[in-house]
Amino acid sequence: MRDPRYDLLFAPLKIGPVTAKNRFFQVPHCNGMGHAMPLAHAAMREVKAEGGWAVVSTEECEIHPSGDLTPYVEARLWDDRDIPALALMCDKVHAHGALAALELTHNGPTASNLYSREVLIAPSPQPAKYGYPHQARAMTLHDIREYRRWHREAAIRGKRAGMDIIYAYAAHDLSLAMHFLQRRRNQRSDAYGGALENRVRLLREVLEDTKEAVGGTCAVALRFAVDELLGPGGVELAEAQDIVGMLAELPDLWDVNLAAWYNDSVPSRFAAEGAQEPFIAFVKKTTTKPVVGVGRFTSPDTMVSQLKRGVLDLIGCARPSIADPFLPRKIEEGRVDDIRECIGCNVCVSGDMTISPIRCTQNPTMGEEWRKGWHPERIAPARTPARVLVVGAGPAGLEAARALGQRGCEVSLAEARRELGGRVTREARLPGLAEWARVRDWRVGQINKLANVAVYLDSALTAQDVLDFGAEHVVLATGCHWRRDGCGRSHGFAIPGFDDGARVFTLDDLMDGRLPQGRVAVYDDDGYYHASVAAELLRRRGCEVVHLTPEDSLAPWTLNTLDYRHVRKRMAELGIEALVSHDVVGYAGGVLTVEDVWTHRRRELPCDAVVTVTARLPDDTLYRELQGREAEWSGAGIRSVRCIGDAEAPGLIAHAVYAGHRYARELQEPGTGEVAFQRHFHTAHADDLRRPR
Amino acid sequence: MRDPRYDLLFAPLKIGPVTAKNRFFQVPHCNGMGHAMPLAHAAMREVKAEGGWAVVSTEECEIHPSGDLTPYVEARLWDDRDIPALALMCDKVHAHGALAALELTHNGPTASNLYSREVLIAPSPQPAKYGYPHQARAMTLHDIREYRRWHREAAIRGKRAGMDIIYAYAAHDLSLAMHFLQRRRNQRSDAYGGALENRVRLLREVLEDTKEAVGGTCAVALRFAVDELLGPGGVELAEAQDIVGMLAELPDLWDVNLAAWYNDSVPSRFAAEGAQEPFIAFVKKTTTKPVVGVGRFTSPDTMVSQLKRGVLDLIGCARPSIADPFLPRKIEEGRVDDIRECIGCNVCVSGDMTISPIRCTQNPTMGEEWRKGWHPERIAPARTPARVLVVGAGPAGLEAARALGQRGCEVSLAEARRELGGRVTREARLPGLAEWARVRDWRVGQINKLANVAVYLDSALTAQDVLDFGAEHVVLATGCHWRRDGCGRSHGFAIPGFDDGARVFTLDDLMDGRLPQGRVAVYDDDGYYHASVAAELLRRRGCEVVHLTPEDSLAPWTLNTLDYRHVRKRMAELGIEALVSHDVVGYAGGVLTVEDVWTHRRRELPCDAVVTVTARLPDDTLYRELQGREAEWSGAGIRSVRCIGDAEAPGLIAHAVYAGHRYARELQEPGTGEVAFQRHFHTAHADDLRRPR
Repeated sequence: MRDPRYDLLFAPLKIGPVTAKNRFFQVPHCNGMGHAMPLAHAAMREVKAEGGWAVVSTEECEIHPSGDLTPYVEARLWDDRDIPALALMCDKVHAHGALAALELTHNGPTASNLYSREVLIAPSPQPAKYGYPHQARAMTLHDIREYRRWHREAAIRGKRAGMDIIYAYAAHDLSLAMHFLQRRRNQRSDAYGGALENRVRLLREVLEDTKEAVGGTCAVALRFAVDELLGPGGVELAEAQDIVGMLAELPDLWDVNLAAWYNDSVPSRFAAEGAQEPFIAFVKKTTTKPVVGVGRFTSPDTMVSQLKRGVLDLIGCARPSIADPFLPRKIEEGRVDDIRECIGCNVCVSGDMTISPIRCTQNPTMGEEWRKGWHPERIAPARTPARVLVVGAGPAGLEAARALGQRGCEVSLAEARRELGGRVTREARLPGLAEWARVRDWRVGQINKLANVAVYLDSALTAQDVLDFGAEHVVLATGCHWRRDGCGRSHGFAIPGFDDGARVFTLDDLMDGRLPQGRVAVYDDDGYYHASVAAELLRRRGCEVVHLTPEDSLAPWTLNTLDYRHVRKRMAELGIEALVSHDVVGYAGGVLTVEDVWTHRRRELPCDAVVTVTARLPDDTLYRELQGREAEWSGAGIRSVRCIGDAEAPGLIAHAVYAGHRYARELQEPGTGEVAFQRHFHTAHADDLRRPR
Repeated sequence: MRDPRYDLLFAPLKIGPVTAKNRFFQVPHCNGMGHAMPLAHAAMREVKAEGGWAVVSTEECEIHPSGDLTPYVEARLWDDRDIPALALMCDKVHAHGALAALELTHNGPTASNLYSREVLIAPSPQPAKYGYPHQARAMTLHDIREYRRWHREAAIRGKRAGMDIIYAYAAHDLSLAMHFLQRRRNQRSDAYGGALENRVRLLREVLEDTKEAVGGTCAVALRFAVDELLGPGGVELAEAQDIVGMLAELPDLWDVNLAAWYNDSVPSRFAAEGAQEPFIAFVKKTTTKPVVGVGRFTSPDTMVSQLKRGVLDLIGCARPSIADPFLPRKIEEGRVDDIRECIGCNVCVSGDMTISPIRCTQNPTMGEEWRKGWHPERIAPARTPARVLVVGAGPAGLEAARALGQRGCEVSLAEARRELGGRVTREARLPGLAEWARVRDWRVGQINKLANVAVYLDSALTAQDVLDFGAEHVVLATGCHWRRDGCGRSHGFAIPGFDDGARVFTLDDLMDGRLPQGRVAVYDDDGYYHASVAAELLRRRGCEVVHLTPEDSLAPWTLNTLDYRHVRKRMAELGIEALVSHDVVGYAGGVLTVEDVWTHRRRELPCDAVVTVTARLPDDTLYRELQGREAEWSGAGIRSVRCIGDAEAPGLIAHAVYAGHRYARELQEPGTGEVAFQRHFHTAHADDLRRPR
């Protein structure tokens, strides 16, 4: 079944005392469930093992209360009571022949200790990066010995839980072992500071400790950042090369990447597949040990090339394994075109950032494996082969049609436009968003294989058309449009002058090719990506652009997707003027009046046009018309009419895909009560807590 | 024992079918523990009941997954499985003769649904306030009926849990019942929108529903915001007066305040005790039902005045009940000067904001009641009456001396300066921070009652002095000082020119009375309150001030204490120029060179002086000297030397008080292992979850 070109990807590889069955390595990644939702976490990891990954890793795992990451929910091995949660994961992962890996860390001054209330520790006195505006104390030699003991004991607990690979972590600016390397954080004058050899000492000791503690059974991996991209203020490539040279044969596996997280998991708007290669390529030349690295790999050809050219030994994936947990198995089974490719939107990252369970734009089952019993590849067949009309082929409609088709329903998908994809097709034409079309492409590819899904383009439907169609179930996924009137977070009422359609543009205008010229103000009351993309488009088309927001920072929500710094840099590089903390008073005669939200000082900005990015309105006219004719449904054979996705409540593409999937999953299924999912409970019964497990 | 002037505060009061034993009412407040830490939550509420509050309330309680507040951890009554956690609280509260109150809410478009993944609902389509940048859909009449059913069912669950008072919630811009009142959020054209009577309809129905469901047993309270302070864009006082008039006799109790939260729980820097009176005073004139309101009341005279003048019937407290859970009992027992008064720093609020358990500057036992078994009034006596030398009488040293004294130790407290209080005394002289001296005043008051604590002022000690002193235990709480060199979050290395002590000032210089003149740049790389306080001080002394930060907003951490908007407004009112996203390159010849962190454009700011607020260095010289002479300890009779508070790791005042308290608690006690507290576990055993309770 497998294309022989990809055989290399399925060659087993020895990693210290353990053997990976193939070259697919799910590197550690956060997920917002961690220690707080152990059943959900284990089920999520299990699906990856089932999908063919040779190695399935945890997220960061705290080793001690003085390295408490609250509010971020990661793994935890503070004492023996934390073993069962990780043992559960190991059992699930092993059941599918995969190896389980554990990423141990103590975050030092990048911990928060918000929960533990312990004093922060660091190589030298310094302010904390997260949590309270407090400072860390400098570790004494006694502290260093204690830290090494905690790490060793956590490694042993990991082994007892069943882990096959134990990581030491020196990446992302999130680990003491890395902080000791950094001159800006380590200004010690003892054997652990100063010369590089001294700054590397702790990392070397931790690796030696771990090997000594568990090395007979477990592989010991090192996750290491080769560049912080901070210039001389941070770890730079030249120094990293020296470090790799010094430690070359010590770990059983090198897992190499860039720091901080926003330089590692760069959104597709700002980096392509394999972007880390120029930074990490040296590692394999420096060590004989296996090397794993990431690059948001979704193409098996690219993967094979990485192995053949000696860049990597193992294909590390976090995001691609989230978008498609079955990626390895699909390659193995010769179903490469079934791969659901990551679009690089980083909505997965936003789960960790917002302290909520991970979700994925492409894979609506992510985070639902345990609590809703959703599997990324399987859905129970429909109880009866219902006839369903899906109106609208955007992300919600496509996913509903695809998943209903998978369930065996007889599906008709009607799209008013002459192209499929709705907003993803339209947005994918905007600067930097091309990969978002993968949301469409995968679904269209799947639908094309389903004989029971018929697709009709150029088919705008009236309510009468729907009634005449003869479907038992109708689902309207007709999308939404951007408001022109300025209403949004900051304005409950229309902004004076924004009804001037000749000079006030929406993102829909831009996507329709109706572009302003001259000096343009982009008014951003949305806070996510749309406004900066509009600003970029117009600037590249020669406009002079001011990007204006009542918020105190531009595009603040993009912090949650790691876009933020890249957005700010690109806006600056393009010469787009940023004007924060300014709201719009009105627009008249080519003058936009803005007001500083704190000083209330007003300014007049002459501009030829305004692009307003505030909020959206559902395109639900058809739904409302059908609601108004409910009396005619049964005569027309209609048993239900639902409205989903942006047509119900405009949201992210992820919300639309999820809505389509959920609709398909729940059709004809019995109701689940008020709470549509299983929950973890934090028992109120003290006896349960005291009872030994 | 009780002063008869305060008798009025102890008169029982009927609230619908239940009776409050006195007039002390702990209104609902968040705590960062909620449904995730039910044992810790119940124990915290129990201590308040023990301390004499007639009513002890929950925080917000979610009634349905479509009103999920993740990541904020509040109470939850989604279904019957949530009853045990709240029943536990009721049992604990009832054990002390107090009433338990439950604040039900559905946050509509101010929910996040980050966890539940349900679609948001709202009166009209609108963007969400929190969570993803998604939008809420407009509720249909069916949705409104469903919402009423959820509310009714949650009220019944609350009654089953043992609650005595059930709240409907229309405050803080955090509840659908309030969102329907707001014209900017409610633009419906049906019976629930338009005229005020229509916008009030849902709130009236919810009150009627709740009375019908549980009114025979439970009192039904209404928490209602009388003004949003948004001008015509929000609910204004005149309209609120109409609303109170329309619903006057419907609830059994009116709990009235200001919206949003930052206008309700205003920090002491920006509002004095009783500041809400001008807004809420009308309510008692409009209804015959009891009225409760808040004002950060800590003075029994003020409280009595509120009752006598007919402003309130019950003294509502959130923050004062956190700082001193025993406030009512202390008044009752004639121990008014034992009251530990809230300082209005809002560190309590930051727990909820940072998704971590509540803590309190004044009360270090807050949040530790269950997990460490700490009680705000009691500590176990010391095993032996140890002789302890405490060096430094700042917040850490004062609290250590006080708590050690309470435990029966023989305590000597040596302070180098001629005044007690350390940083709180010094900072309390800065603009707006006067109440912070309460941290000192309460501790000094308590120490003065303890014969076994001796206080020595003007007593700088050398290492030799300490060795000669004859204490068994020495604890150094010698504080810290602000760095002048610019090192901090943004700079790992000194900033060129910042060694110019004649022109570069620290906060210590300012507190010592050494003030710059002319045009001054305040460089803020700290992000909390210090820099804006310095800017305010200098502006009021006539300087021209620019407040400069490399962060993208000024004082971003003050969002967590509800200071942020007040800080921004005050800075604007004072004419202090804000310059965000700019870092310092260097300072030379009266010119500060700054660089836009995104565009890298440099600017030169001529300024006569720079005040640098970046980070602090521990004053731990004495500790280091003693460490160096460890061989002499046993000869001197010294068994331990410890360093705590800012001298160990500079932090908040709250950290210093906590460190002093913890030192005193743990002295001579056996170790607790790596994890010094009890934890809640989220079991990894599926069987435990399925087992009916």
